[in-house]
Amino acid sequence: MSNTAGKVIKCKAAIAWEAGKPLVIEEVEVAPPQAMEVRIKIIFTSLCHTDVYFWEAKGQKPVFPRIFGHEAGGIVESVGEGVTDLAPGDHVLPVFTGECKDCAHCKSEESNMCNLLRINTDRGVMIGDGKSRFSINGKPIYHFVGTSTFSEYTVVHVGCVAKINPLAPLDKVCVLSCGISTGLGATLNVAKPPKGSSVAIFGLGAVGLAAAEGARIAGASRIIGIDVNPRRFIEAKKFGVTEFVNPKDHDKPVQEVLAEMTDGGVDRSIECTGNVDAMISAFEYISLSHGWGVAVLVGVPHKDAVFKTHPMNVLNERTLKGTFFGNYKPRSDIPGVVEKYMNKELELEKFITHEVPFSEINKAFDYMLKGDSLRCIIRMGE
Amino acid sequence: MSNTAGKVIKCKAAIAWEAGKPLVIEEVEVAPPQAMEVRIKIIFTSLCHTDVYFWEAKGQKPVFPRIFGHEAGGIVESVGEGVTDLAPGDHVLPVFTGECKDCAHCKSEESNMCNLLRINTDRGVMIGDGKSRFSINGKPIYHFVGTSTFSEYTVVHVGCVAKINPLAPLDKVCVLSCGISTGLGATLNVAKPPKGSSVAIFGLGAVGLAAAEGARIAGASRIIGIDVNPRRFIEAKKFGVTEFVNPKDHDKPVQEVLAEMTDGGVDRSIECTGNVDAMISAFEYISLSHGWGVAVLVGVPHKDAVFKTHPMNVLNERTLKGTFFGNYKPRSDIPGVVEKYMNKELELEKFITHEVPFSEINKAFDYMLKGDSLRCIIRMGE
Repeated sequence: MSNTAGKVIKCKAAIAWEAGKPLVIEEVEVAPPQAMEVRIKIIFTSLCHTDVYFWEAKGQKPVFPRIFGHEAGGIVESVGEGVTDLAPGDHVLPVFTGECKDCAHCKSEESNMCNLLRINTDRGVMIGDGKSRFSINGKPIYHFVGTSTFSEYTVVHVGCVAKINPLAPLDKVCVLSCGISTGLGATLNVAKPPKGSSVAIFGLGAVGLAAAEGARIAGASRIIGIDVNPRRFIEAKKFGVTEFVNPKDHDKPVQEVLAEMTDGGVDRSIECTGNVDAMISAFEYISLSHGWGVAVLVGVPHKDAVFKTHPMNVLNERTLKGTFFGNYKPRSDIPGVVEKYMNKELELEKFITHEVPFSEINKAFDYMLKGDSLRCIIRMGE
Repeated sequence: MSNTAGKVIKCKAAIAWEAGKPLVIEEVEVAPPQAMEVRIKIIFTSLCHTDVYFWEAKGQKPVFPRIFGHEAGGIVESVGEGVTDLAPGDHVLPVFTGECKDCAHCKSEESNMCNLLRINTDRGVMIGDGKSRFSINGKPIYHFVGTSTFSEYTVVHVGCVAKINPLAPLDKVCVLSCGISTGLGATLNVAKPPKGSSVAIFGLGAVGLAAAEGARIAGASRIIGIDVNPRRFIEAKKFGVTEFVNPKDHDKPVQEVLAEMTDGGVDRSIECTGNVDAMISAFEYISLSHGWGVAVLVGVPHKDAVFKTHPMNVLNERTLKGTFFGNYKPRSDIPGVVEKYMNKELELEKFITHEVPFSEINKAFDYMLKGDSLRCIIRMGE
């Protein structure tokens, strides 16, 4: 056991004191892990849109002060009572959703939406005792999606920790904690394009490009990227995107442009924007000429959005599917995704466009808000 | 070759002279089959809702005078030029949709919606020359969905003819031409319930009961039938339906009733009514508590219907699929469905509630309109 086990650890964390204001690096106290919890030394973390979305707190319940961060790689420092499959020194990825291995969802091969540990963005405390493990001068600082990786040490439920190959470089595989696995799994686990098929991807941010990476790995012959940002196409080429459509370049609806390009439709479409009109386009466009095809929804919609289509579009043998975290079960499946990187099947370097020291974490927010970065790695350091 | 090959055959057919009026048995002339066509002696036919729907011609283009009928079993009398895989004497089921074996859909494993021979309810002629093969006193009588089995002889495109085991009793397997295969395939090919799973079926007509039969064959442990007609439950028990819900018996929405019965949801739901509200219920109900499950739409909706749902219902890993003819390819797959009956895996007798001679074909319409029959077999005879 480490000599810090069972003790409070004082370390640096980036505190979000209020919505939309720059994070402040401060000293926090991190309590020891309780039953079924793990304390992790974070080595690298990265910034995902979801952190920014809840930091901006436009429209959702604000929970502050809070430590954001949910894409990270670290090393187990100590474990709480009842934790048997992790030990100090294990290399791990904390994940924003969990796998208790005991509920109906965990026992089903068809779901990764654990009843106990499914993402909860409103909760700022641990599920065991309803308390935070972070404090400053005795006052609690709230958790975010059970991970709070913008801290040198964090406490995570064991069900939200994937134990990975210790040889895997944490500054690369940390991005598999969320967005990249979400996009990759949307293609490989849900859309499942046959070799030689055509795939359309709506939205070429990190998730969409990870979906494209999945299509490249699956051997798709045409990968059509759709985005309103023309800069995305240059990056997208690296991810195997073969054609690019900017809806702003056309007077007619994007479905019609795509139908002309593809003689009626593609075999698979993957919606990564969260825009409900794009969702409907993605679905109705799979094959405008009737029949087959799978549309996968990945992007999270506005709470008032309504998906509308004529039921004949379904009856004509289209399939509409949704996915959450690429249908990966965090503990069972993510170690295998890390292995895909280790055996060079999956390329992660191209997702990493920026890197900053922890002290400059607010720069990572700037890069993302400007649309400059795919992923910015944040080095925690001593 | 039969001695009628190449000649016009005079025989009896049931003519629909105008919408909604009783059929009239008359002598028609049936021209010889042209290139890629087959002339079939119909031995047994049965009545399906689709015949009644287009005979009533409420809302669609009326095509009269017409010979309806599309569920049937018969024997090949003669074949036209270019037909190599069928010969006089072969036992066959004509099918309302086809399989050219040459288009992108036929070549895809994911579709049975042949580009050339896909169902067309407006067309009353053969696709080869745009003419009818039926006439009375030189005036054409129109075809229906390329089959027109309410005639002692009919001409069908070779792509719409399934060659079956000659030992199969045509008075039973004729029902596999349409509705029963549609429901059975919706479960076995599309919903694919795992053994021990729960399945909800909306609408317990012949198609819904065939879907239940599929669930029974797949080994589902709970099969919940939903219908507004309480008489259906007595029949439904024979098809393995374990529980019955009549929405009229409850003040609250049927989804809530079902959710209480099933601790949050079923693994599969199959919509066989064509009512868009039932479709939405079927989809949203798969698992009200989030996650997994497949809803399959089978019933044909009103042309102005709109399927609406919140996209989060999709994102929570639900799957929505449509099916046409149970995803069976007529020539490739239907012979195998006949074999399922021959080896006693599939029970057909329980679908056959009535039988009439050809001369009393209008009784079959009465039984269906009153909701008394599942399938009424019509014996053609000499």
